[in-house]
Amino acid sequence: MFVCYHGLMATPKPRQVLSRRSRPAKSPLSQEAIVSTALDLLSREGMAGLSLRKVAAVLDTGAASLYVYVANLDELHALVLDRVLGEVVTPAGRDGDWRYRLKAALRSYSEALYARPGLAQVALSTIPSGPNMVELTESLLALLEQGGVEPGRAAWAVDLLLLHTSAFAAERDNRRGGDEVALRRAQEALGSVSPDEHPHIHALGAELFSGEQSRYDWGLDVLINGVLSTPRP
Amino acid sequence: MFVCYHGLMATPKPRQVLSRRSRPAKSPLSQEAIVSTALDLLSREGMAGLSLRKVAAVLDTGAASLYVYVANLDELHALVLDRVLGEVVTPAGRDGDWRYRLKAALRSYSEALYARPGLAQVALSTIPSGPNMVELTESLLALLEQGGVEPGRAAWAVDLLLLHTSAFAAERDNRRGGDEVALRRAQEALGSVSPDEHPHIHALGAELFSGEQSRYDWGLDVLINGVLSTPRP
Repeated sequence: MFVCYHGLMATPKPRQVLSRRSRPAKSPLSQEAIVSTALDLLSREGMAGLSLRKVAAVLDTGAASLYVYVANLDELHALVLDRVLGEVVTPAGRDGDWRYRLKAALRSYSEALYARPGLAQVALSTIPSGPNMVELTESLLALLEQGGVEPGRAAWAVDLLLLHTSAFAAERDNRRGGDEVALRRAQEALGSVSPDEHPHIHALGAELFSGEQSRYDWGLDVLINGVLSTPRP
Repeated sequence: MFVCYHGLMATPKPRQVLSRRSRPAKSPLSQEAIVSTALDLLSREGMAGLSLRKVAAVLDTGAASLYVYVANLDELHALVLDRVLGEVVTPAGRDGDWRYRLKAALRSYSEALYARPGLAQVALSTIPSGPNMVELTESLLALLEQGGVEPGRAAWAVDLLLLHTSAFAAERDNRRGGDEVALRRAQEALGSVSPDEHPHIHALGAELFSGEQSRYDWGLDVLINGVLSTPRP
């Protein structure tokens, strides 16, 4: 089925030519147009919508035509991810608490992923290399430097913080998918253990499932405090 | 195509009856048999092999027959994950360094996931509730208690440590898939930045991609040290 992508259609198209078959002219192909279309599909259909074939269909061309601009689905994933990373807000300047700003940047990264179902999984399976990832990495390194973390440790820390944030977003994403049944099953399993065999679980009870946002914030502080107190081997 | 699953065929089958159509008798259906078959498929074909349809085909029955034992694919994932968690080695007893034993248990968890391509992604998207996850949770809580972590904090810590370990295994898993091109692209992107615009990245260079096992070990120490120094809000 052909879907009219209003956002795309509304964009002024340079070098538009009239089709001889009097249908709407094709947008000129470009990596930019391919990534915009892919992001649009992702927002509407989730990761399942993100295929080269579907992107080609929206752009009214064949998948083979896309390979000039995008090598394969992995590269498309990396490009889409990098485009989304353009939304990450890293509080600017050297003013203010570096820890507060570091956490704000990571929270913004997490939200940008979470806003597109499935994208966090892509972030976990993609090695991004676009300009926005470069900017984000530079910002995080600068913030860690302000926190007194030496460069080699900061390099590893950026990796760890982004991995953790992606994983947390993926976990949230998966639970959005109506995993209530699985959650209840887990709560029942852990809530019904015997105090003799599993004393620690028994004593904790619902505590094992407490927190959500506060747990995520705590996790970020755990990582930051851990980075501050753990020299590289 | 029918594939002979030797492991399964060699298992003595109780209540075997002769088929009237003189083909090998069906194994009696059970949740146990379904999970064994699913694990076998996972080991051979990766996550793509793990569907109720394929499990049913190997067991020579229809997918509908499986629903008596397994509600849906999510539950099958959870059951397979729990079966694999049975392999996790948690050093026993109260002797020895709790930190060493905690890290050994997490490393064992990571290896059990990594041994099956795709399973780490399942771990990130599944809320497990089986007996092996209960055992692992109890063991980790006990180790954290030995480390002086109070129960409420330990509850959140177990979640954080398992999330991190799954994410790390998923990252390793994805990189096994021949992501050399993407890695090189990322190395080139970060290696070619200008010292004026991205001074931190420029100064670090290859350091951003250093370590592998040692980086993972460091990450575990970061988390443990962070847990020790970060009270719950």
